[in-house]
Amino acid sequence: MRATVHRFTMRDPGDVSQLADAIEAGTVDPATIVAVIGKTEGNGLVNDFTRGYLVLSLKLLLAARLGVAPDAVARAVIFVFSGGTEGVLTPHYTVFCVDRTAAPPASSEKRLAIGRAFTPVPAPEQIGTRAHVAMVADAVRRAMAEAGIVDAADVQFVQVKGGCVTTEAAQAALARGARLASSDPNKSMAYTRVAGAFGVMQALGEIAADAVDEAAFFARPDLWCGRASVSSGIEVAENEVVVFGNAPGWSSRFVIAQHTMDDALDINGVYACLDKLGIAARGDSRAPGLERVACALVKCEPDARGLVRGQRHTMWQDGDINAQRHIRGAVGGLVAGVLGDTRIFVSGGAEHQGPPGGGLVALIARTD
Amino acid sequence: MRATVHRFTMRDPGDVSQLADAIEAGTVDPATIVAVIGKTEGNGLVNDFTRGYLVLSLKLLLAARLGVAPDAVARAVIFVFSGGTEGVLTPHYTVFCVDRTAAPPASSEKRLAIGRAFTPVPAPEQIGTRAHVAMVADAVRRAMAEAGIVDAADVQFVQVKGGCVTTEAAQAALARGARLASSDPNKSMAYTRVAGAFGVMQALGEIAADAVDEAAFFARPDLWCGRASVSSGIEVAENEVVVFGNAPGWSSRFVIAQHTMDDALDINGVYACLDKLGIAARGDSRAPGLERVACALVKCEPDARGLVRGQRHTMWQDGDINAQRHIRGAVGGLVAGVLGDTRIFVSGGAEHQGPPGGGLVALIARTD
Amino acid sequence: MRATVHRFTMRDPGDVSQLADAIEAGTVDPATIVAVIGKTEGNGLVNDFTRGYLVLSLKLLLAARLGVAPDAVARAVIFVFSGGTEGVLTPHYTVFCVDRTAAPPASSEKRLAIGRAFTPVPAPEQIGTRAHVAMVADAVRRAMAEAGIVDAADVQFVQVKGGCVTTEAAQAALARGARLASSDPNKSMAYTRVAGAFGVMQALGEIAADAVDEAAFFARPDLWCGRASVSSGIEVAENEVVVFGNAPGWSSRFVIAQHTMDDALDINGVYACLDKLGIAARGDSRAPGLERVACALVKCEPDARGLVRGQRHTMWQDGDINAQRHIRGAVGGLVAGVLGDTRIFVSGGAEHQGPPGGGLVALIARTD
Amino acid sequence: MRATVHRFTMRDPGDVSQLADAIEAGTVDPATIVAVIGKTEGNGLVNDFTRGYLVLSLKLLLAARLGVAPDAVARAVIFVFSGGTEGVLTPHYTVFCVDRTAAPPASSEKRLAIGRAFTPVPAPEQIGTRAHVAMVADAVRRAMAEAGIVDAADVQFVQVKGGCVTTEAAQAALARGARLASSDPNKSMAYTRVAGAFGVMQALGEIAADAVDEAAFFARPDLWCGRASVSSGIEVAENEVVVFGNAPGWSSRFVIAQHTMDDALDINGVYACLDKLGIAARGDSRAPGLERVACALVKCEPDARGLVRGQRHTMWQDGDINAQRHIRGAVGGLVAGVLGDTRIFVSGGAEHQGPPGGGLVALIARTD
Repeated sequence: MRATVHRFTMRDPGDVSQLADAIEAGTVDPATIVAVIGKTEGNGLVNDFTRGYLVLSLKLLLAARLGVAPDAVARAVIFVFSGGTEGVLTPHYTVFCVDRTAAPPASSEKRLAIGRAFTPVPAPEQIGTRAHVAMVADAVRRAMAEAGIVDAADVQFVQVKGGCVTTEAAQAALARGARLASSDPNKSMAYTRVAGAFGVMQALGEIAADAVDEAAFFARPDLWCGRASVSSGIEVAENEVVVFGNAPGWSSRFVIAQHTMDDALDINGVYACLDKLGIAARGDSRAPGLERVACALVKCEPDARGLVRGQRHTMWQDGDINAQRHIRGAVGGLVAGVLGDTRIFVSGGAEHQGPPGGGLVALIARTD
Repeated sequence: MRATVHRFTMRDPGDVSQLADAIEAGTVDPATIVAVIGKTEGNGLVNDFTRGYLVLSLKLLLAARLGVAPDAVARAVIFVFSGGTEGVLTPHYTVFCVDRTAAPPASSEKRLAIGRAFTPVPAPEQIGTRAHVAMVADAVRRAMAEAGIVDAADVQFVQVKGGCVTTEAAQAALARGARLASSDPNKSMAYTRVAGAFGVMQALGEIAADAVDEAAFFARPDLWCGRASVSSGIEVAENEVVVFGNAPGWSSRFVIAQHTMDDALDINGVYACLDKLGIAARGDSRAPGLERVACALVKCEPDARGLVRGQRHTMWQDGDINAQRHIRGAVGGLVAGVLGDTRIFVSGGAEHQGPPGGGLVALIARTD
Repeated sequence: MRATVHRFTMRDPGDVSQLADAIEAGTVDPATIVAVIGKTEGNGLVNDFTRGYLVLSLKLLLAARLGVAPDAVARAVIFVFSGGTEGVLTPHYTVFCVDRTAAPPASSEKRLAIGRAFTPVPAPEQIGTRAHVAMVADAVRRAMAEAGIVDAADVQFVQVKGGCVTTEAAQAALARGARLASSDPNKSMAYTRVAGAFGVMQALGEIAADAVDEAAFFARPDLWCGRASVSSGIEVAENEVVVFGNAPGWSSRFVIAQHTMDDALDINGVYACLDKLGIAARGDSRAPGLERVACALVKCEPDARGLVRGQRHTMWQDGDINAQRHIRGAVGGLVAGVLGDTRIFVSGGAEHQGPPGGGLVALIARTD
Repeated sequence: MRATVHRFTMRDPGDVSQLADAIEAGTVDPATIVAVIGKTEGNGLVNDFTRGYLVLSLKLLLAARLGVAPDAVARAVIFVFSGGTEGVLTPHYTVFCVDRTAAPPASSEKRLAIGRAFTPVPAPEQIGTRAHVAMVADAVRRAMAEAGIVDAADVQFVQVKGGCVTTEAAQAALARGARLASSDPNKSMAYTRVAGAFGVMQALGEIAADAVDEAAFFARPDLWCGRASVSSGIEVAENEVVVFGNAPGWSSRFVIAQHTMDDALDINGVYACLDKLGIAARGDSRAPGLERVACALVKCEPDARGLVRGQRHTMWQDGDINAQRHIRGAVGGLVAGVLGDTRIFVSGGAEHQGPPGGGLVALIARTD
C-alpha cells in the first residue's frame, strides 16, 4: 500500500482547478482519494460557508471524473475543512491518496499509513456522553486496523469530524423526553470535540474506558490527547475518523511526526517535531530541509485563563474579532515563520486536544 | 547620563496604576520621563480611541505627580501608541527615562542613548514633500546630537510620529489655492510615514538629500530604511522624533540592537537581532538569556503583492478584518514565540520602513 | 423645580467641547446636572472603552468648572453611556439638569420630572436575585419621591445602571462559599439587567413583590416592563436609578412619553409614542412637529427565536458582527427615519424590557 | 406574455430547496426563468463567497431540472446577488419568470414587463469610459424592446451587472500599453457601476449621449438616475441588463413602481412608492395592503460627506464594520419597518444611482 500527499492552493473556495489539473496530468488518481483536509478563507465560525462551497465544488469535480453522483463522492472521501486563514495563512487543501494496489515495500521501514472509519450516527442524547466516546474509540481502532497499525505508539495524528445537534433535532429530542448534554448547537459542537478527544485517548490507551468520566468534560483540562484533532459541524451526522501514523507495509516516501505545543508561544514544540523528522532548521526559515515538509497540521486555542506566559491577552474580550480567529493568526504566524511556508492547517477549538492554552503540531514530510 | 527602560501592562486603556505604583515606589522619577511607547487594545485604525484614552490617563497621572497642567506633560513627554493587540499580544507601554544628572560611566562601553527633537509644524502643502523630509532629517540630527551620537551607525531605531491633514485643514488649504500631496486624511497619514522614513534615511546618510525624489514615494519600495519606525495621527501637529542608539557617556545597563525582517516569515531576522545582543535562544522560547530583553519594537506590513514566500495571502481581500490587524497578529505571534514574551510593540504601515512585505525588529536588553 | 434637556454631539469620545461651550455661554449650569445619557462610537461590547473615555473627559470638564475633584463629579452625576452608533446613528449625549430653585409653575400641567436614587452595593451573591430586585424597587420608589411622582402611571422611563461580578470578585465570593447567580461577568451583567427590569416592575406595581420568582428570570420573556431600560457594566458597584416622568410642580417646557415596540419592525409603536406628544408625522420624516423632539431613547434586542415577523434573521449566527450591533443599526435606522434625526440613544440587551424581540421607545419633547 | 415573481428564502447559501419544491409542485416552470435577484448572508465585500455558492447551487438545480449542463444555465438566466443581510434582513432570492406563450391579456392595463440584454465584453481599457456607457445604453434599449416597452417613462427599474478588470487582466492590458480607468479591481468595480448608471440614464433619455462626460464620473453626484441599480463583480465579463417596467401586452397580476430616497432617513420616499401602488400603509407596518408586495429592491449608500441630515455619521471611520454593511443595516431596517417584511434586497455602492447619500426603492406588487 502507498499513501501519497498532494497539497493544492486555490484562488477562492470554488476553485478546484489545481486538483483538476493534477488529475488531468495523472499525478492524482481520483479513485484513490481517501481524505481532503484544508483551510478555506471564511471566518471559521458558524456563518462560514466557504467550507460547504469547497466541499460542493470538490464533489462536483470528483463526481465528473469518477462518473458517479456527487453524493457518492461524499461517502467515499472524508472532507475536513477549517475556515479562517488569518494573518499570513494561505487557503489550501491537502489530498490524501491510498493506493491499495501498490507493490509491497522492499524495506521494512515504517512509512505514512492512513486508515479511516465511521461511527454510527449517535442519537442526540448520546452526543457528548461516554457512549459517544466509546463510538469514537471503536472507530479509531477500526481505522488503525485499516491502516495496519498495531502499536498505538505508531499513531501520530487522528482527525475526527463529528456532527452536533441542530436546533430542530434538539427540540424533537427534548419533546420525546430525551436528556441532552446541550441543546445549543454551538455547545453541542464543543461536546462532540470533547467526546472525540476522549475517544482517541481511549483507543490509544491513554485512558481506560472505565476512567472516562463525563464530569471531566471541559472541567479537567489536564486530561488531554496530543494526537487528537477534532472538528464538528452540522454537515455530518456520524463521526468520521482518519488515523495517520507510520507503519510497515506502506511504501511511500512520506512519514509523519507530531509534538505537543505547551502554549501559543511554544516554538520549542514545533522544532521538536522537525527534529523527529530529521529536519534541522532551528532559527532558519529557509533551511533546505524544510522543503521536505508536505503537510502541516496544527491545533491551538486561546488560553482560557486569559494569560499567555503570565501576561494578559485580549482574545476573549474582543467584540470585533472572535478569539479563535486571533489565535489561529498568531500560532499560524509562528509556525509559518518556523517552516518558511504559509500553507498550514491551523484549527482552533482544542478542548482536551493538547495542553490548556496550547495544542499540537503534526508534520508530514518526504524522507531524504 | 543614564537611560532606563520600564515596561508596564494595563487592565484597560485607562489603567495607569502600574506606573503610578512605580512612581510611588521611587522606581520611576516622573521628571525624567522622555517618552512612552506602547500598544493599546483598540483596532489600531481611524476609530481607535484607546490611544487617546491612554494618553489622557497618563497625562493626568503625570500632571498630578509633577504638579503641572496636563498640557505641560504633553510638551515634555513624547507619547507613541499603536492600537491593536491582535493574537497573543499584551497591552503594555514602555516608559523611557533619561537621568541627565547621573554620574558619567566608568567604562567607555556604549550604552543605550536616547535623544529627542521636534520639527516645526509643516504646512498642509508641505506634508509628504521633500520639505517634509528635510524637516524630519533635521530633527533626527538634532535628536542624535542630544543623544550624543556622532556616528550614524550607532543609531539603532528612530521613532517618528507626525501629523496629517484633517478634512478641515485640507479644505482650508485647497481654498487658498494650496496643492496637497493628498487631501484624504488616511492617505495623508501614509505620506507622513513616507516622509518620515526618507527623513531618517537622509539624516543617517543612507540617501543624499538631493537624491530624495517625490516620485519615489510609495513607488520605489526598494528604497527603505531598516531603522525607521514612523506613525502618524491627527493628535500631533509637528513631527516628534525619538532616536535610540548606543553611545559612550551613557551609564545604564541597557543596550539596543536592530535587524531587518525580509518578510513576515523572517524568523532569521529576529534571531539575528538577538545575536547582536549576545542572547542565544535559537528555537528555545524559554532560554534564560531572553529575560534580559526589556523592550521589543517591531514594524511590519502585509505584502502589497498579495504573496508571502510565493503563496497567496488573504489579508487585503478581507472585508471583516483589516489587513494591518492580520499582519500584526501573525508577526506578533512569531516574534512572541521567539522571545517567549507577548509584550511586543508591533506596528503596521511600514512604507519604506524595511523591505517590501517585511519590516524590522529592535530589541533593548540589559547587559549580562 | 425645572428639568431641562440639552443634547450635544462630539467629534470623538474625548470631545466635550459642546458642553464646555454651553457652560461658558451660561446655557447649562454645571451645578444642576443630574445625569448624562449618551451613545459613543465604540462597539458597545466588553472591549468598548469609548464609554470610559467619555466619562473621564466629562468628569475632568465638570470638575474644572465646579472646582471639585473628578471623583466628586462621579458621585453627583449619573453617567449612562451605551456604545455603538451602527448605521446612521450619531455619537451624542444628552445632559439632564434639574434646577431646584426654579419658581413653581403657574400651571398645574404635568411637566418633565426627574428623580434619582442609588441602591446599596449588592453583595456578589445578591446579584440577580430577589434581594437585588428589592433593592432596585426601593431605589425606584425613592427616585419617584425625589421627582415628586405619586402616581406610578406618571413614570414614563426608568434608566437603571448596575454593576456585575468581576472575575476577581466572583472568585473571592466562591472562595468564601457564596453561591452566585453567575460567576461569568457577561452573564452577571445580564442578571443585573434582569433584576433591574423586575425591580422597576415591582416599584411601578406591575408585579407584586411576592410574585417575583427567580425561576422566571430569562425563562419567562412574557414578563416584561415597557418602561425599564437597564444597562450594566463593571464601572459601577451600586445600582443607579434615574426616573423620568411627568408631574405637577415642574415648570419646564418638556414632557416625556413612551410606547412599547412589539418587534424590530414595529414602526406603529414609534408613531404611537409621537401621538402621545401630539406630534403628527406619520410617514413624514420632515414634519415640522418633529423639531420638538429633544431626546429619543430606545431599547431593542435581536429576536431570540431567530425570526422577525416569521422570517429568519442572521444576527445570532454572524461571527463578524455581534447581534447587538446588528439590531441597534436596524432599529436605529427605523426610528431615525421616523424622527428625521440620527441622534438617538439605542441600547440592546433588553431582557424583560419590552416584548421578546421588541423593546420600547421614549421621547422627550418640548410642548408647543 | 406573462411575468411572474416568486420569492424564496434559504437556510444557507447552498439551500435551494424552496425553488426545488416550487418546480416540483409546478408553481415555477424552470424553462421560463429569466433572472434571479437575491441577498445572501455574506459580508457583501470582496471576500464574500456566498454569492458564488448560491449561483453554483442554483445552476446545479436548474441544470438537473432542465437536463442541460450547468454552464448553459448561466447563459440562460441572469443571476444578481448582493451579499449582506445586516440587521433584520432575511436571506432570500426572487425568481422572475417570463412565459412568452401566455395568452394576450384581455385588458390594456399595463402590467409587469421584463426584458433582458447583454453587452459585448468590454476591453479593459473601455471599462468606465464613454464607450462602456454606450454599450450599456444600447443593451438597455434592446432589453426595453424585448419587454415591449416603447415609452421610457414606463421603465421603473433597470438592474445592470457588469464585470471589472482583474489584477491579471489589468497587468496584461498595461503591458500592451493600454490606458485603464483604474487597474485596481475594487475601483474598477466602481467604474463599472458608474458607467452602468450613465448608460441607463442615456438609454432612458435622461442625459444626451454627447453630454456624457467622463470628468463627471464620481465628481458630479448631482447627476444621477433614480431607476438604475448597478452591481459589479469578477464573476461576469459582459454587462447583463434586466429592465423592469409596466407595459401593455403583459398579462400578470404584477405591477412595479419606484421612487427615489433623498437620504437614508427618507421614509417619505418609501411611502411615496407605496402610494404609486395604491397601498395605504402610512405608519402601519401591519396594513393589509402590504401583503400585496411581492418584491422590494433598494439601493443606498453612506453619505460621502459624513453627514445624515446635518449630523455626523461614523460609517466611513469604522475599521471593524465596512460602511456598506452599516448603511444596508440601517436602510434595510427602515424599509422593513415600513413594509412589515424583512425580505428586502438592499444593495450599496449607489454611485450616480439616486441622490448623494440617498438611493431608490422599487416595489413589485400584486394588483388588488
